[in-house]
This record gives sequence, C-alpha cells and structure tokens, in this order.
Amino acid sequence: MPDYTLYYWPIPFRGHFVRYVLAHVGAEWEEPGAEALLALKDATPADQPYPFMAPPLLHDLRADRWLSQMPAIVMYLGRKHGLAGDPDEALRLVSDAADILLEITRHHGDQMWDRPAWEAFTDTRLPRWMPLHEALAARGRFDAEKPGLAELTLAALWHTMVDRLPGLRPLLSANAPRVETLVDAVAALPGIATMRAGWDRQGAGYCGGQIEASLRAMLAGGD
Amino acid sequence: MPDYTLYYWPIPFRGHFVRYVLAHVGAEWEEPGAEALLALKDATPADQPYPFMAPPLLHDLRADRWLSQMPAIVMYLGRKHGLAGDPDEALRLVSDAADILLEITRHHGDQMWDRPAWEAFTDTRLPRWMPLHEALAARGRFDAEKPGLAELTLAALWHTMVDRLPGLRPLLSANAPRVETLVDAVAALPGIATMRAGWDRQGAGYCGGQIEASLRAMLAGGD
Repeated sequence: MPDYTLYYWPIPFRGHFVRYVLAHVGAEWEEPGAEALLALKDATPADQPYPFMAPPLLHDLRADRWLSQMPAIVMYLGRKHGLAGDPDEALRLVSDAADILLEITRHHGDQMWDRPAWEAFTDTRLPRWMPLHEALAARGRFDAEKPGLAELTLAALWHTMVDRLPGLRPLLSANAPRVETLVDAVAALPGIATMRAGWDRQGAGYCGGQIEASLRAMLAGGD
Repeated sequence: MPDYTLYYWPIPFRGHFVRYVLAHVGAEWEEPGAEALLALKDATPADQPYPFMAPPLLHDLRADRWLSQMPAIVMYLGRKHGLAGDPDEALRLVSDAADILLEITRHHGDQMWDRPAWEAFTDTRLPRWMPLHEALAARGRFDAEKPGLAELTLAALWHTMVDRLPGLRPLLSANAPRVETLVDAVAALPGIATMRAGWDRQGAGYCGGQIEASLRAMLAGGD
C-alpha cells in the first residue's frame, strides 16, 4: 500500500509543491488521475469523503486523513516529516507561491494573456516577486544542503516555472541569482530529480489548459 | 506599548482575519494607516524590515517578529495564543477564505463585475463554497462556544461578507444555515463585537476600491 493518494491534474503546477515534499522524504504515493479526481470533485459536499472545492487533495492512507488546499497539505506533510523549519516563514513562501501561480495564470485562466498584460507581468510583477525571495536568501534564510519546506517550496515554485517555461529563466537569473542557484540545487536532489524525470518523459507542460497555450504564445513573441 | 502593529488598508476584508484573532484574544494593536504601509511596501526588498509584497503585514512588537501573508499571520497568532485547534483544518479554511476573497474581487479587481459573471458567481460558485463549509459544520467540526482559528476564520469570511454586503445574506441562509448561526455567534463575542463597532462607526466598506463599487452595483441590480 502506498503512503498517500494525491488527487491532482496530470500537470506540474500546484501538484509539484506536494510532489517535491513527497519525493524528498521518500514517500510512496499514487496519483489516480483525472477521472477519479472528477468523481470526488463533482460529488455533493455531503457525499465527499472530505468536503473540498478543488485539487490538490491528499489522502494520508495510513492515518486515513484527508487534506484539501495546497498550503494545508504542504504544511501537514512538513510537520509530519520534520521539514517545517520555521513554519511561519514556510507558510509565507507557500502563500507567496499561491499568489504567483494565480498571477501567471491570470486567476485560473479568467483572462488570456495579451502583450500589454504580459509586459506588465514580466517587467513589473515578476521583477518584484523575485527580489523579495532574493532578499530573504541574502539574509541567509535558506540552506540547499538541508532543505526544509521553505527551500522545497521555492524550488517547486521557481524551478518548475523556469524549467517548464525556459524563456523566463533569464528573468530569474537577473533578479534572483541566489534563488536560482538554490532551486537548481534542490531540484537536482536525488528523489526530486527522479520524480521530475518521470514528468519529463511524459512531456508534461506547466499549468495546462488554454492559459498555458496563451503563456507559450507570449514567450514565443505573439500578440 | 501595544503588542502588535498591523499594517493594512483601512477596510475589513483580509484585515478582519487578523483583527478577529487579535480582538478575541484581547491583544492590543495599532494600525498606522495607509501612508506608513505604503512607505514600507514601496521600499526596495533589501530596505524593507522584512521583505513582503502586499499587506497585511504584522509586526509582533514584543518578539520583534515580522510576518507577511494573511495565512502565515493568522496561523502564527493562532499557535501563539493557543487557538490553532486542528491546524491543518484551520489552514484549509484560511486557504478557502483567501480563494473566496479573490473570487469576489475578481482577483484584486483585475476585472469589474458584469451581470453574467455576477450571476455565475452567485448562482454557482458561492452556492458551492457555502455548502462545503456547511458540510464540515454538519460533521461537528466547529464550536461557537470555544472558537479557535477555524471558527474565527469562518466568521471573518462569511460574517464580514454578509454584514458589509447584506444582499448576500439570503444566499448564506439558504446554503449554509449552520455556518450562518455559527458566524453570527462568533461575530457577537464581546471583543469582536467591540472591534466591529469601531469599523461601523467609521462607515467602513468591504474590500474598497472600484471593485467594491462594482460589487455594490451588482447587488443594487445594475448591469
């Protein structure tokens, strides 16, 4: 029996925050895929094993404990596996990440990207977010040798972004070189590298959907 | 000296999640207002006392500890003041609340409301969110007599919404009657009621800005 069942779409995005932790601690987990997820998600709240709105949803099989919401899942796993470190700073970074994922998908694809909005995002917003984390790194808050939730979260955020959307890597190099070094090191840790290689073999994208196509069109120079 | 300085806009919205906890535990806090907040927010990350993107920002004056991001602030205060209860379920509700606040403001006012979007929100999204919390209430997860972070968070979310936007109360009554009873009881607790009365005297709105005007136009029956 695996340790956990993770219900999420077959994409990196929010799922990787959970997968980075699971892979790093050497947990065994299964991902039953979109059909099983939709059956749970579309049930009435009273019929759901644990009422939840949207994935990721985690079932800790040994504890028979269900968790909804990426921040709650990550903080639970961090505490359980001794990775929480400073839990308030970890949760702050998880919350930053959640904000950034909403910005890069224009709030779950509510709007598609156009050139002016993309320029505002890449000229103003990302060059503000990245130095915030760089300033924390400059204050010595992170340790790639002994990664906890803070480092794993930064890697799931920034490495996944520049790995899946390589056109954004120069922005990270320019605005947050310490963070870039840190997240590359975390992403290369054995358990995490193996997990990522599986996604590479599947040719997985980033956030999926029309909004990923819109992102890629911007990076390719479209309107 | 107060216990805390809370940097936030002079509106309920995300600030009330912090204020509900502070008021309930009887903490003393000051809110220096928008000008002091902007001076911190607009500083370069290296010059900020603690690098952060957006309020709320909390300074625990006795511990000289800075916290950014509403979920991190609330979880810190909950742990410090013995209110965390089940921290994973509390954080799940805090995360739900953050999602709902983004939905009701269309992601920080990225778009204004129009009638079709408003109908989708009030016919589909809110009538999904509310029964999720009702289903948790039906499973006996909450206790208005001994409120912890979970109950305080639900009240800061749903009571604030239907108190500031009374046109939405019938939706809460219809979709989450147990939650309505719970949050009315929590909002009436002495420390919280006193805090809220101060905001009532100021005639404070809900989320502020053009998006609040857009919300109120929808509730008044506009296009």
